[in-house]
Amino acid sequence: MKIQPVIMSGGSGTRLWPMSRAARPKQFLKLFTDETLLQETALRLAPDADEAFLNPVVIAGGKHGRLIVEQLTALNIEPAEVILEPCQRNTAAVAAVAAAWVARHGEDSLVVLLPADHHIEDVDGFRNAIAKGAAAAEKGLIVTFGIKPTHPHTGYGYIETGEALFDSVYEVAAFKEKPDHDTAEQYLKDGGYYWNGGIFLFKASAMLEELSLHAPAIKEAAVGALNASVMSGPARRLDEAIFSGCPANSVDYAVMEKTEKAAIVAPVDVGWADIGSWSEVASREDAADVIVVDAENNIIRTDGPLIAAAGVEGLIIVATGDAVLVARRDNAQQVRAVVEELQRRGRIDLL
Amino acid sequence: MKIQPVIMSGGSGTRLWPMSRAARPKQFLKLFTDETLLQETALRLAPDADEAFLNPVVIAGGKHGRLIVEQLTALNIEPAEVILEPCQRNTAAVAAVAAAWVARHGEDSLVVLLPADHHIEDVDGFRNAIAKGAAAAEKGLIVTFGIKPTHPHTGYGYIETGEALFDSVYEVAAFKEKPDHDTAEQYLKDGGYYWNGGIFLFKASAMLEELSLHAPAIKEAAVGALNASVMSGPARRLDEAIFSGCPANSVDYAVMEKTEKAAIVAPVDVGWADIGSWSEVASREDAADVIVVDAENNIIRTDGPLIAAAGVEGLIIVATGDAVLVARRDNAQQVRAVVEELQRRGRIDLL
Repeated sequence: MKIQPVIMSGGSGTRLWPMSRAARPKQFLKLFTDETLLQETALRLAPDADEAFLNPVVIAGGKHGRLIVEQLTALNIEPAEVILEPCQRNTAAVAAVAAAWVARHGEDSLVVLLPADHHIEDVDGFRNAIAKGAAAAEKGLIVTFGIKPTHPHTGYGYIETGEALFDSVYEVAAFKEKPDHDTAEQYLKDGGYYWNGGIFLFKASAMLEELSLHAPAIKEAAVGALNASVMSGPARRLDEAIFSGCPANSVDYAVMEKTEKAAIVAPVDVGWADIGSWSEVASREDAADVIVVDAENNIIRTDGPLIAAAGVEGLIIVATGDAVLVARRDNAQQVRAVVEELQRRGRIDLL
Repeated sequence: MKIQPVIMSGGSGTRLWPMSRAARPKQFLKLFTDETLLQETALRLAPDADEAFLNPVVIAGGKHGRLIVEQLTALNIEPAEVILEPCQRNTAAVAAVAAAWVARHGEDSLVVLLPADHHIEDVDGFRNAIAKGAAAAEKGLIVTFGIKPTHPHTGYGYIETGEALFDSVYEVAAFKEKPDHDTAEQYLKDGGYYWNGGIFLFKASAMLEELSLHAPAIKEAAVGALNASVMSGPARRLDEAIFSGCPANSVDYAVMEKTEKAAIVAPVDVGWADIGSWSEVASREDAADVIVVDAENNIIRTDGPLIAAAGVEGLIIVATGDAVLVARRDNAQQVRAVVEELQRRGRIDLL
């Protein structure tokens, strides 16, 4: 059975300011390799990697159509379609659009729905996990993926597994919000809890049925917005009037917690990361535009100006052509306060 | 008697990299006020401040003629002449050119010869010191100025005073090189030692006579290079063949230590500073392009990009359009190592 990758590129975070901007969120940045996170995501499920994979569909923020086409074309990957959201309506709406798009193209393929802004180190391992999930999805289950936790991370949601169903596939016992540190430690001690990877695998028809049962307003608005969509340059733009009326909810809440068809592949141990701050990004001190003198344990990144760091340690130093961030590695979340101050000052040129 | 200010703008330091560059040494930077150090220097002895002061002559590096004219014109100060050195030959040559230029214009004015890259807080106090020195200079003495030391600075030369001559004017007992810390402390304890301000006041004829006696080769080359000079755009260019043959020496060594006419005005207590590193420059955290979140005791300066500093302390953070320096306040001299690395990498674009 063919697998249709649908890449969710709607994110617009500012946690990697000054590199991430409204016009260029983190999925468009090269954070780990010479490819951007979007490109990494597309290559992870490239058609030539496994003949099961179809050319990807990308569902993205309304202003990013051309950027997406550019970044995929640079990899010789032609998107099957780039679908632009006129507003953000969370992942359940995206899942509905994805399923409806596949149904509209006359197929009942499996859909793998995955965020554009994650890094996965072990791509083969990830494809193996997809293959395991596919066996369950073909039976009509809505499959999610449980990342093996490496430490008690408090920035991720967790999923508790229930009864075993097949090889590495379990029922979902519960979705857990981002825990405090003690709770996260307890999860790791207890076992059976996995990081919620935010990745889904399902038959298009199964997702549409479950949406009809548990989130009919979302399904109706998303399908309606797709049916009324129009081409705009290289991308298809969802109908704004209809899509803006779509309730905003996550796949987890709107579908997974309600359906009897939820399943989870676990453990998935593939070096997965959803980058929440600069403190999790690799330093690039070997770059031509970085000079380090007697400085250690810093995260230094530039996409233009030369950075010279002398005698300092434990810092995040990030420079773009128009802004510089200097923060502490152990308090990278302070970038939020910086972004809030920029908003207060009306510096939309830097946001 | 009229006083001819001659501003020595030949400096080319890199200690304030990345703002100071070969094309824009520190005298062309705004470090303390809304004026550059050159502009501060010109205003300090502006013609309208005291009718004794003539329009200034500026003796400068060969590539800075236009910049000097621009910066002075912006203050409505028209330089009497901008004289460009084809190569650096230290201050004795500059003093010789200054004296010869005045003699050539048919006057035997007093000349006040002062560096373009010093900051002086108390301008009225400085003019008072000049007035005291003028009484001695009119009698044919070569006058220097002893800055009252505020702490045992090891980055400045010192002058030991001898016998009193007039009000606040002494003979010079000795010039002292930059001392180590213990020696500097002893100077302060003993008293009678002053920072060498590198400022001179003399009758043009007196300087020419003392040069003839103690440094005839310098006088001959400097006067010859001025006589063979030609106008080049807005500035007068010293003859390169002649001037390059001029021995390089300081006024202190070539004249002051040898002449019997040396005198010193002391103490001069006017908030004088010769800025040796970023650690001595004021932070500009109230600038529109600086955001500080929970960060203290930093020196932050930008001439373009926004700088956001979060959670950090004791740092120097300086940004220009093409380079960023992050260093420790207590080790600002490490910028030298950065500049050396830039030279090794051949990054003349950043030097």
